[in-house]
Amino acid sequence: MVSSYFSDARRLLCPLSLWAKRCPNSGEMTPVGGKRVKKGILERLNSGEVVIGDGSFVFTLEKRGYVKAGLWTPEAAVEYPEAVRQLHMEYLRAGSNVMQTFTFFAGKDNLESKWKDVNEAACDLAREVTEKGDALVAGGISQTSLYKNQKNKLEIKEIFQQQLEVFTRKNVDFLIAEYFEYCEEAVWAVEVLKESGKPVAATMCIGPEGDMHNLTPGECAVRLVKAGASIVGVNCRFGPEISLATVKLMKEGLEASGLKAYLMIQSLGFHTPDCGKGGFVDLPQYPFGLEPRVATRWDIQKYAREAYNLGVRYIGGCCGFEPYHIRAIAEELAPERGFLPDASEKHGSWGSGLSMHTKPWIRARAQKEYWKNLLPASGRPYFPSLSKPDA
Amino acid sequence: MVSSYFSDARRLLCPLSLWAKRCPNSGEMTPVGGKRVKKGILERLNSGEVVIGDGSFVFTLEKRGYVKAGLWTPEAAVEYPEAVRQLHMEYLRAGSNVMQTFTFFAGKDNLESKWKDVNEAACDLAREVTEKGDALVAGGISQTSLYKNQKNKLEIKEIFQQQLEVFTRKNVDFLIAEYFEYCEEAVWAVEVLKESGKPVAATMCIGPEGDMHNLTPGECAVRLVKAGASIVGVNCRFGPEISLATVKLMKEGLEASGLKAYLMIQSLGFHTPDCGKGGFVDLPQYPFGLEPRVATRWDIQKYAREAYNLGVRYIGGCCGFEPYHIRAIAEELAPERGFLPDASEKHGSWGSGLSMHTKPWIRARAQKEYWKNLLPASGRPYFPSLSKPDA
Amino acid sequence: MVSSYFSDARRLLCPLSLWAKRCPNSGEMTPVGGKRVKKGILERLNSGEVVIGDGSFVFTLEKRGYVKAGLWTPEAAVEYPEAVRQLHMEYLRAGSNVMQTFTFFAGKDNLESKWKDVNEAACDLAREVTEKGDALVAGGISQTSLYKNQKNKLEIKEIFQQQLEVFTRKNVDFLIAEYFEYCEEAVWAVEVLKESGKPVAATMCIGPEGDMHNLTPGECAVRLVKAGASIVGVNCRFGPEISLATVKLMKEGLEASGLKAYLMIQSLGFHTPDCGKGGFVDLPQYPFGLEPRVATRWDIQKYAREAYNLGVRYIGGCCGFEPYHIRAIAEELAPERGFLPDASEKHGSWGSGLSMHTKPWIRARAQKEYWKNLLPASGRPYFPSLSKPDA
Amino acid sequence: MVSSYFSDARRLLCPLSLWAKRCPNSGEMTPVGGKRVKKGILERLNSGEVVIGDGSFVFTLEKRGYVKAGLWTPEAAVEYPEAVRQLHMEYLRAGSNVMQTFTFFAGKDNLESKWKDVNEAACDLAREVTEKGDALVAGGISQTSLYKNQKNKLEIKEIFQQQLEVFTRKNVDFLIAEYFEYCEEAVWAVEVLKESGKPVAATMCIGPEGDMHNLTPGECAVRLVKAGASIVGVNCRFGPEISLATVKLMKEGLEASGLKAYLMIQSLGFHTPDCGKGGFVDLPQYPFGLEPRVATRWDIQKYAREAYNLGVRYIGGCCGFEPYHIRAIAEELAPERGFLPDASEKHGSWGSGLSMHTKPWIRARAQKEYWKNLLPASGRPYFPSLSKPDA
Repeated sequence: MVSSYFSDARRLLCPLSLWAKRCPNSGEMTPVGGKRVKKGILERLNSGEVVIGDGSFVFTLEKRGYVKAGLWTPEAAVEYPEAVRQLHMEYLRAGSNVMQTFTFFAGKDNLESKWKDVNEAACDLAREVTEKGDALVAGGISQTSLYKNQKNKLEIKEIFQQQLEVFTRKNVDFLIAEYFEYCEEAVWAVEVLKESGKPVAATMCIGPEGDMHNLTPGECAVRLVKAGASIVGVNCRFGPEISLATVKLMKEGLEASGLKAYLMIQSLGFHTPDCGKGGFVDLPQYPFGLEPRVATRWDIQKYAREAYNLGVRYIGGCCGFEPYHIRAIAEELAPERGFLPDASEKHGSWGSGLSMHTKPWIRARAQKEYWKNLLPASGRPYFPSLSKPDA
Repeated sequence: MVSSYFSDARRLLCPLSLWAKRCPNSGEMTPVGGKRVKKGILERLNSGEVVIGDGSFVFTLEKRGYVKAGLWTPEAAVEYPEAVRQLHMEYLRAGSNVMQTFTFFAGKDNLESKWKDVNEAACDLAREVTEKGDALVAGGISQTSLYKNQKNKLEIKEIFQQQLEVFTRKNVDFLIAEYFEYCEEAVWAVEVLKESGKPVAATMCIGPEGDMHNLTPGECAVRLVKAGASIVGVNCRFGPEISLATVKLMKEGLEASGLKAYLMIQSLGFHTPDCGKGGFVDLPQYPFGLEPRVATRWDIQKYAREAYNLGVRYIGGCCGFEPYHIRAIAEELAPERGFLPDASEKHGSWGSGLSMHTKPWIRARAQKEYWKNLLPASGRPYFPSLSKPDA
Repeated sequence: MVSSYFSDARRLLCPLSLWAKRCPNSGEMTPVGGKRVKKGILERLNSGEVVIGDGSFVFTLEKRGYVKAGLWTPEAAVEYPEAVRQLHMEYLRAGSNVMQTFTFFAGKDNLESKWKDVNEAACDLAREVTEKGDALVAGGISQTSLYKNQKNKLEIKEIFQQQLEVFTRKNVDFLIAEYFEYCEEAVWAVEVLKESGKPVAATMCIGPEGDMHNLTPGECAVRLVKAGASIVGVNCRFGPEISLATVKLMKEGLEASGLKAYLMIQSLGFHTPDCGKGGFVDLPQYPFGLEPRVATRWDIQKYAREAYNLGVRYIGGCCGFEPYHIRAIAEELAPERGFLPDASEKHGSWGSGLSMHTKPWIRARAQKEYWKNLLPASGRPYFPSLSKPDA
Repeated sequence: MVSSYFSDARRLLCPLSLWAKRCPNSGEMTPVGGKRVKKGILERLNSGEVVIGDGSFVFTLEKRGYVKAGLWTPEAAVEYPEAVRQLHMEYLRAGSNVMQTFTFFAGKDNLESKWKDVNEAACDLAREVTEKGDALVAGGISQTSLYKNQKNKLEIKEIFQQQLEVFTRKNVDFLIAEYFEYCEEAVWAVEVLKESGKPVAATMCIGPEGDMHNLTPGECAVRLVKAGASIVGVNCRFGPEISLATVKLMKEGLEASGLKAYLMIQSLGFHTPDCGKGGFVDLPQYPFGLEPRVATRWDIQKYAREAYNLGVRYIGGCCGFEPYHIRAIAEELAPERGFLPDASEKHGSWGSGLSMHTKPWIRARAQKEYWKNLLPASGRPYFPSLSKPDA
């Protein structure tokens, strides 16, 4: 879309052969006692690596038939482990360096007696898959259903602690507090997670207007870092462009406070320029009519490049991000990282896979110039391009 | 979109309890010797059942990282069987009564020495999954890469015969010749498949303007039925509305000729009102920028209803059709069929799963009136809604 | 839009100086007795000239405050003659060779006792203005309000005869029967007008689907020519592209019948790709929300070129056509005609008037390449690009 | 668009008969010596009246063939006085209480030796028309072509003084400094105009981001009032919604400074949500492809209502505002003002003129509910709704 982005001369000059190897060993350290030891999340970031997150679980599994919209709970980890495992595998193959445990909304407030089984199964699935590649397991907790109504700090922290107990027992590699719309609750989560001694990342599901108590993104970032998060950023609720703007505000807030932390971004895979403060849930099309907003792989290459240029080094996705979107991050940043993901085996960079097509006008699409200038028409002339948020 | 469609009073009055049972036995016949015997494709259609097809394989697996765009060949059946099996499972769970073998473009013209392994593996995978539910295995062949250039009938028929030999050995339940843009080649395919003695379906990837030799849809249907197809229709290349128009022309052609056959439709999951004769491959966004055109589940319910009203009894999808789109067919036609698919376990009809949401304006979306009137905005105000085809 | 149109090399090579003279004498014949005698409409067409019609009256005067929408009657000819005269002057200046009397819907069926005064005043105004330039007066009659309900041929013909009596007395140069949706009534009109001995043109307000009795455009053209019309075509109800398609069908109908007549087109100044058979009156935005559909001057240059290429030699406009649209016809066809209209004094061809702008990016717009590739955005992201017709 | 606006119950309940009289005497004071004496601009505003400005001159006359785009100078006042007079008449008839002299860009910097004749002729034309109704003559000066390059205060003020000398001699009723993008130059203009002793209004062509020196709208308003302007606001460069936002900022700036002044708004008649700081001139469609952005009459009724609710009492339009848009202001505010404009003779409020249409679905449009909910489709599915500004 923005052509300046595509003028990255280095990318164009860099011969594919220099960075086209796959399955790097860069994530491995010298074996100790014969067993591979992976570098931890902070070691990776400290050494300047780009860490690629995973993508959408609840939205993607809803479309595959394993998660119920509205509830968005991950009991499929117990009920349909093969479906969850397969999705993990796809992200691993697409280039993800992190498998988040499928534990979204999986506190006892949402899952009642099932919560423990779900958390345990999710840890096992994530671990099983990470063993097949260069990825870490991140135990994930998210906002509770209690905060908004009663703000009972003790009760909320207990929910987090219960989940943490499982993560500790299952020895996840690091922890993520994600999808918080109130900074205060996110701080509580970080405080709990820090007790584990493991690295903690924290992401809020907010936009440039800040959290639901009107704390700015910069202030949220500051509080989360002060609470102990080593990595801060945003996930969900807003599309690529708006999420980048929010992380930029977080970065500026941290700089103004003299604090240091790694930045993380996991935007929606949907375009949402017309969102209000509440994000995509307030759009009239949420959650069953968002299809026309799905980002192309080219949109995501642009997102990855802009995130990288902003200094973000943990780049992934949230709802709407499919495996091919994660692959697009890995392909865009292949020059920096030095390798392509496994799934690029089945993907010609910038449409080059079309170069053998029988129709000459389709062969003509086998080039970067074509796709970077793409006009992705909606095919829906009776519908508008934007809509006004509810509420 | 079309409100008349939604005025189906029977649907609204029909208590869910009357048709909400799942996993029907309707597909079973009296067990013989203790083993369940499934009703065949023609028995089902003869008895008035609606048969639900499966959805997208090459496009969906491309997004999951297992198929290469441009080639669109199914070697993943051998390389990544768990990924193919999982997708079959999702369609079965969504309500599909047919598992097409993952053998698209799998003749030796495209796959060379690998062709046999791929066809065999694909048959085994399809059979394995159908055993878990009420579905049949359909062996599928598609147009060759030879016809356009040389039209060598013998060589082309030999490719089809090779595939048929595998299907016969693996004892698939019936056969489909699909994705033909030339009626003549499709007729050759039907002629070969008929030799097996199994029921044969044939679909062409054409629109209302007819095949690439300018045969009308009606004439194509007539020739295919005369060649021996029991089921005729269209698949791929055009979206729901245009595919319906094409099948209507086929129906009229058959009626005018006094021929009888069952009708089948497997449209794209993309909206393509702006296609020319060549269909979506000529749209500038093919194949890497079609996201904004993806149909919603509500679009597909409308498609299923209109197909049913047109008399089509084999209803499925092609590229862009995800498992939740197949579920949408099964949910729309649940009143007629008497049951819901397994995957409806995770789906409240018409958004009812939102009825417990904490935000009242999102709860307000938990109703049919809301979603049937949805305006699916693209979130892309800098792009048009239509584009002109290349070529 | 269609780039082939712009590749008219002759136009690009033709130096402006060769055809930039204005106020041609081409319409004058040798003076007789000291008085200039203008060439008649058929003399012009016979000699291969392009005749440029006028544009919108009722719609334009509605926006200026002198006509009431819904009635669309021309009593302003009596009430506000200076406003009507001014609009005539603008069209003359823009290049029109015809001033149609402002007598639309001005039969006694619509205007009762006022009808005579209005018709006389309209003739005088048109004549007064044509005296100032190279234009002819055309007396115009349009469909009655009676046909649809009762089809009383005698009564309807009497209304036409009354108007014709005025036109004869005022000695208009030729006659136009316009805005007929039923060919039969248009034939009656032509029959009446032919009694005058003056040349008769006849236009129908139909699209490619034909008249309200389902006569094809070709059949309508044939009947009108057989009834005595020397010039046939369409006006109103449809935008440029659709009107061109309709005239093409008329041309083909005439050719198939071996009949000869001049072709005429006066399309709407609105884009209406989404019209049904009834044309723009059935669009939900008619008549008070059509603004986003107004054609640019570049759209009209394209229309003029395509009409010319189709063989149409009487080219004008109807509702929505403003004076600058008529100028666009005259500018586009200046190479063929050999001169520019007076109003080009205030218009640099293809935006060249911007060449002195202080902002360099606006200066950059002073060229044909810029405007021919223009993307005319609506500024309305919350609204769709098309709508479905009522009825 | 925004439904809350339309819920103005008073309007709906107010019987038309109570406010439907036209041609009010409210603008007249007791005759002195037999001659009517009109109330001055400040008397009107002081007494709480709503003053309706006029609309577009250069853009409208460009479309009529009398002004050259790019130059935008008003020499037509001398060359084609009947065309300028007619446009004045249309605005008077539409409800304008002010006839601005057609002196835009009419300093000697742009018009050289012609400047004096043009200014004099423009004054005479405006005066002639105001004599026919309840309107005042406002002498108007606009930014010079000198400021940006050299900022020669003396030279610039001399240009203003020359124009003022004509306005004083012609005894205009008040003065307007308009279309300034730099507050400093506007202040100079106000300082010059104040020397006359006549009331001075000052409008800037800025948006919410402020002037080209980055002064906020609030600060601009403060400086203009301190320089002597009694009325401040914005004109041109931005559409209705953005102009309202800018005036709101001006109002807040004045309130914060404890200053009092009347507010004035004369927005574009184009929708420009996608403008940058420079306004519509930077949009790629400026000036020859803005048609799809033209406001409907309903958009302008909303604009008038929102301006009124904001406390603005001088409400008019700029480029793109046609006479029917001015009438829309007068109709919307008829309940407050107690009368309708003359041109409403030819306009049924809220589409009521369609109530006699022969087609029932068009008759159904003869109501407020219909038009307030209108979706004004562009008829241009191949073009986007927004575009990015140049520069």
